[in-house]
Amino acid sequence: MKLQLDPDRLFPADPATRAVARALFEQVENLPILSPHGHVDPAILVDDRQFPNPAELFIRYDHYVTRLMHSAGVDLSRLGIPNRQSGEPVASPREVWRTFSENWHLYAGTASGYWLQSTFNQVFGIDVQPSAENADAVYDVIQAALDTDDFRPRALFSRFDIEVLATTDDPMDSLAPHRALAADPSFSGRVLPTFRPDAYLNPSTPGWADKVAALAEWNGSAVSSYTGYIEALAGRRRYFVENGAVSADHGVFEPLAVDLSPAEASALFEKGLSGTLSAAESRAFAGHMLLESARMSTEDGLVMTVHPGVYRNHSSETFAAFGPDTGHDIPVTTTYVENMRPLLEKYGNNADFHLVLFSVDETVYSREVAPLAGFYPSVYIGAPWWFLDAPDSVLRFRSAVTETAGFYRSSGFIDDTRAFLSIPARHDMARRLDSAFLARLVREGRIDEGTAGRIIVDLVDSLPRKVFKL
Amino acid sequence: MKLQLDPDRLFPADPATRAVARALFEQVENLPILSPHGHVDPAILVDDRQFPNPAELFIRYDHYVTRLMHSAGVDLSRLGIPNRQSGEPVASPREVWRTFSENWHLYAGTASGYWLQSTFNQVFGIDVQPSAENADAVYDVIQAALDTDDFRPRALFSRFDIEVLATTDDPMDSLAPHRALAADPSFSGRVLPTFRPDAYLNPSTPGWADKVAALAEWNGSAVSSYTGYIEALAGRRRYFVENGAVSADHGVFEPLAVDLSPAEASALFEKGLSGTLSAAESRAFAGHMLLESARMSTEDGLVMTVHPGVYRNHSSETFAAFGPDTGHDIPVTTTYVENMRPLLEKYGNNADFHLVLFSVDETVYSREVAPLAGFYPSVYIGAPWWFLDAPDSVLRFRSAVTETAGFYRSSGFIDDTRAFLSIPARHDMARRLDSAFLARLVREGRIDEGTAGRIIVDLVDSLPRKVFKL
Amino acid sequence: MKLQLDPDRLFPADPATRAVARALFEQVENLPILSPHGHVDPAILVDDRQFPNPAELFIRYDHYVTRLMHSAGVDLSRLGIPNRQSGEPVASPREVWRTFSENWHLYAGTASGYWLQSTFNQVFGIDVQPSAENADAVYDVIQAALDTDDFRPRALFSRFDIEVLATTDDPMDSLAPHRALAADPSFSGRVLPTFRPDAYLNPSTPGWADKVAALAEWNGSAVSSYTGYIEALAGRRRYFVENGAVSADHGVFEPLAVDLSPAEASALFEKGLSGTLSAAESRAFAGHMLLESARMSTEDGLVMTVHPGVYRNHSSETFAAFGPDTGHDIPVTTTYVENMRPLLEKYGNNADFHLVLFSVDETVYSREVAPLAGFYPSVYIGAPWWFLDAPDSVLRFRSAVTETAGFYRSSGFIDDTRAFLSIPARHDMARRLDSAFLARLVREGRIDEGTAGRIIVDLVDSLPRKVFKL
Repeated sequence: MKLQLDPDRLFPADPATRAVARALFEQVENLPILSPHGHVDPAILVDDRQFPNPAELFIRYDHYVTRLMHSAGVDLSRLGIPNRQSGEPVASPREVWRTFSENWHLYAGTASGYWLQSTFNQVFGIDVQPSAENADAVYDVIQAALDTDDFRPRALFSRFDIEVLATTDDPMDSLAPHRALAADPSFSGRVLPTFRPDAYLNPSTPGWADKVAALAEWNGSAVSSYTGYIEALAGRRRYFVENGAVSADHGVFEPLAVDLSPAEASALFEKGLSGTLSAAESRAFAGHMLLESARMSTEDGLVMTVHPGVYRNHSSETFAAFGPDTGHDIPVTTTYVENMRPLLEKYGNNADFHLVLFSVDETVYSREVAPLAGFYPSVYIGAPWWFLDAPDSVLRFRSAVTETAGFYRSSGFIDDTRAFLSIPARHDMARRLDSAFLARLVREGRIDEGTAGRIIVDLVDSLPRKVFKL
Repeated sequence: MKLQLDPDRLFPADPATRAVARALFEQVENLPILSPHGHVDPAILVDDRQFPNPAELFIRYDHYVTRLMHSAGVDLSRLGIPNRQSGEPVASPREVWRTFSENWHLYAGTASGYWLQSTFNQVFGIDVQPSAENADAVYDVIQAALDTDDFRPRALFSRFDIEVLATTDDPMDSLAPHRALAADPSFSGRVLPTFRPDAYLNPSTPGWADKVAALAEWNGSAVSSYTGYIEALAGRRRYFVENGAVSADHGVFEPLAVDLSPAEASALFEKGLSGTLSAAESRAFAGHMLLESARMSTEDGLVMTVHPGVYRNHSSETFAAFGPDTGHDIPVTTTYVENMRPLLEKYGNNADFHLVLFSVDETVYSREVAPLAGFYPSVYIGAPWWFLDAPDSVLRFRSAVTETAGFYRSSGFIDDTRAFLSIPARHDMARRLDSAFLARLVREGRIDEGTAGRIIVDLVDSLPRKVFKL
Repeated sequence: MKLQLDPDRLFPADPATRAVARALFEQVENLPILSPHGHVDPAILVDDRQFPNPAELFIRYDHYVTRLMHSAGVDLSRLGIPNRQSGEPVASPREVWRTFSENWHLYAGTASGYWLQSTFNQVFGIDVQPSAENADAVYDVIQAALDTDDFRPRALFSRFDIEVLATTDDPMDSLAPHRALAADPSFSGRVLPTFRPDAYLNPSTPGWADKVAALAEWNGSAVSSYTGYIEALAGRRRYFVENGAVSADHGVFEPLAVDLSPAEASALFEKGLSGTLSAAESRAFAGHMLLESARMSTEDGLVMTVHPGVYRNHSSETFAAFGPDTGHDIPVTTTYVENMRPLLEKYGNNADFHLVLFSVDETVYSREVAPLAGFYPSVYIGAPWWFLDAPDSVLRFRSAVTETAGFYRSSGFIDDTRAFLSIPARHDMARRLDSAFLARLVREGRIDEGTAGRIIVDLVDSLPRKVFKL
């Protein structure tokens, strides 16, 4: 079967509305990509080595892709992920590709299926749907392209017209790749680190004490000093800022802020180091550190992004064998209004503080996030994330938040991806969907076409610049 | 940019469906307005004084409008709201209007933006979108109109073709404006009071003891007498009924009914007066009083409306400076099924008792409200409220409740507004959206056009009359 | 008013999309019906007696139908349901039909209204909408048809082209009707029992101890023996398997799995028999038995279906007078991710174990069910159920789950009905809606028409066969 991309894809079916959507999209189709939050490894741009093969590029590291094959009964080792327990050999890249091609029907209607189609066609010129029959041929086409200089990371970075790309980094990371790229006169893109301190803030995270010790060592303070701990975190944030960071990301299980006195916090910190915190105390300390992080943001200017509500590593068996980020992170119910109030009480009305709230629980969009962002000058509505970063979900999101908060309290699109090659397809999708949504409002007489034209440009360009202080 | 209203606004894009929607809408476009729940001040109709200026009319008192500018960093004093703490001078009406006009883009796609456009155009004949450039000119046009007799409240009441307008009133209110209007042979509209007793029923409300004392004084009973308290509430309800009230409104945080014995209730009442109730006891007493209120409704016939699930005054700082109703009330999760069961066990099957359930948590529409209203003869589905009273939200609401409960268990439209001038725009919007929803069902072969025509008239006319006993 | 079925009913309004939907639907319109879960009484097919009259056939036993009239104030005895308390005579079938016909407008836009229209027209050739005026005439038409052999159950089973029909049965049921049908050479359909053990597994169910005693007696073990209890359940499951069962259904209030040791479970079992379990202990034991049921499924192969989250018999008054299944079962909030983890930890990665998760709380579709089914090979997404088995709800469901889990993790359609005559209308509706959903994806350039054609056939045919091991 043919793989052809409809030039009007994702636009509404009604021809008159579709024409409006197309006209809006044309205004932003070729604007540069701003990617203020994601998970691409910056080293690939430093080294600029060829991507090894289609399987590693598209499958092995993309848990959106591996999870669906796993659900269909395919062992993860057959997708190239090594089993740390059994040590049995993984499938070869070509075998992985064959397995994927045989299972291509699983992706019909999914976000991943959409991005893969776009990328295969637009980046590699492939014009057939993957299948068992053409697996080897398609593999060879992609491999041949990867073997050329045109498909090395920097060439693609340039071809994709990426202006800003943020990575996600450990607070103790040296940021050597970012420094190397910034110092390299032959590379003109902005590749920014992002401060992601969860493992340092939550005492219930395995290895927390070691992380605390590493901070103390760097800071030259006693491990048991709460003051030193806070100083070290602030110091590492400054280091990130000096190296271009614009935001700090918090992947908390629940978005909870707790306002403890320094004495209370210090006492819990010491109990945490001695391993004697109760679950409730651990939760309180983590909540306190979210509040402290907000305070630090008001001082160093880092945008605070919150990505809550994911039960990580839901399958112990899979985690033990294959590690994290292998497809078994599952959303749970999220609520912001009461849990985050202590933080908003302190910093909510500070317009220089930017707090971007994401969710994988759609119910908070109209109930909580839009009303909060429609009042507090600090709060912005995070773009649909992870499971919700897909065509219908994005339109449900816009429908849920816009009537309360308008367009100007939303963050602009965030691709949040570790799949470098999918970046243009994701941004293209977001631009099409926002055009589609706006076109419907135009056709329903709710906004005029001139206003829609201003908004679509702002959504793609000025809003992410403003919200992420780019 | 031009401000023009599309005569087909809010109708579905598909031309064939749009034609059906238009035909349905034409059946109800000019029916009189029934507004059985809202927050207009009745004194404006007694005094019939000119509205002072565009800023006070459209901005200063409308927290839907002020909240979005606040989120964009505009201090509320710049919108005409006095800061009770700083005492600094507020902006002049013209300055307020300029600030609003500069920020007009914030409202694109919002419910407020839609209503304002409609009102500017249809009530004042304005044909440009507000902007920094035209702020003074538009201000002058509106001011010039307001200075004429045609724009005084009674003239607009008549022009808007309002048949019934319910206000919301404190239980101890004298209802003097309602009595004056009823006694005035030159005014033919029905302006009905609504009994809103929350502050008298919930011991955790600041000032509850004073409210109880006021009831006791009016009733001539001892403050500490629970029996007197109940008598006084029933007596004040009768006073409201005698003055035309058809409903009692309950703006509870959580919709909870608790069935206490008179002895238990009396004991908690006394503890409440002595200020020694625990949080759990206070909650139980408030839940008991919701049940008692239902019992009173079965006796005096007042329709019971419940508007739950809003965290009021979320920002202490804003509340301290600017007071309540300034834009920082935020929805929370709501659930009815288990919490309201004691009430439904007692009165749910009483068809003369009308209980209208509203929600700002959309998840209850299909899960709870429609199933409850689809069984209990007392339960009606409240129209989309507050954050959800907007085009997409209304269509989601109809989609969520209709398949379980049909059209005849819903309340009809309720504008719930304190913005008098927005009333026609809101009812027009509701009529268009119900026409749009019905047209889609017709086009999908689910109901025939004749049935849809009967339903649209019932939704606008006979249902609110029946549900609110008008 | 005429009752005519639009041949394009339920297809999208846009003409180009509608044409795609029609072409997809034509591929599956006439495929045989697979009904792997429902509540039809198998005895009607053994006896093959005429259905007595229109009221018993369409109204008295269908709580979707009776509930809406009850909400409109119609006493259930007027619908033919005997009042077990008052003993007052029920209405005659013809009176029931008149009451229904007068209230026909209540069903406009509901799922029941849609199915009834389809059935009246397609099975009985009725071409008028029910009304007070035509009640007797329509009654006579249906009665005349029912009096012929063509409308006896087996003739309709054949006319409806039902290949598989699963019933729902008590674990101690003799399954005599299933055995009779299987042994009858003149009947070629497959009528399969389903093991529904809730009352035997949850100590808080009234009569649980008697159920346990019945199991023990059958098994020849001591009532107080936990081991005997487990043996007996496994034995009865084997008996069901031997008689064609493919699944066991669990209608739990909350989907909770608890992993107890045999000693802990045995101790709670004994406390349960002595009536001294606390609520928490009872909940734990029921959760343990859900886990045990999953274990048994891994041994005997029965598909495990979970239908959670319904507050049964919400109105005590109605339950006392009219019994269960009379319209007052109301959904509550459901969550799977943390509560079911113990079960998924043990059996989630077992691809031979099939676990189908249903919900009447829509919020879990995108948040929990699709992510779980998109990873665990055992988990399938149950089709929209009960209150959600309606056109808009089904499309919301597909929109919520497909982008994460695709089409191949869903169960295929399940009618779950006790209304035998509605079966073809329900399957026809499901096929139309899936065609409509796919057509939209085609028109939006997300999948191609060939892929959509493969999917629609799989949804109707191969998926239910696979998921339910037919």
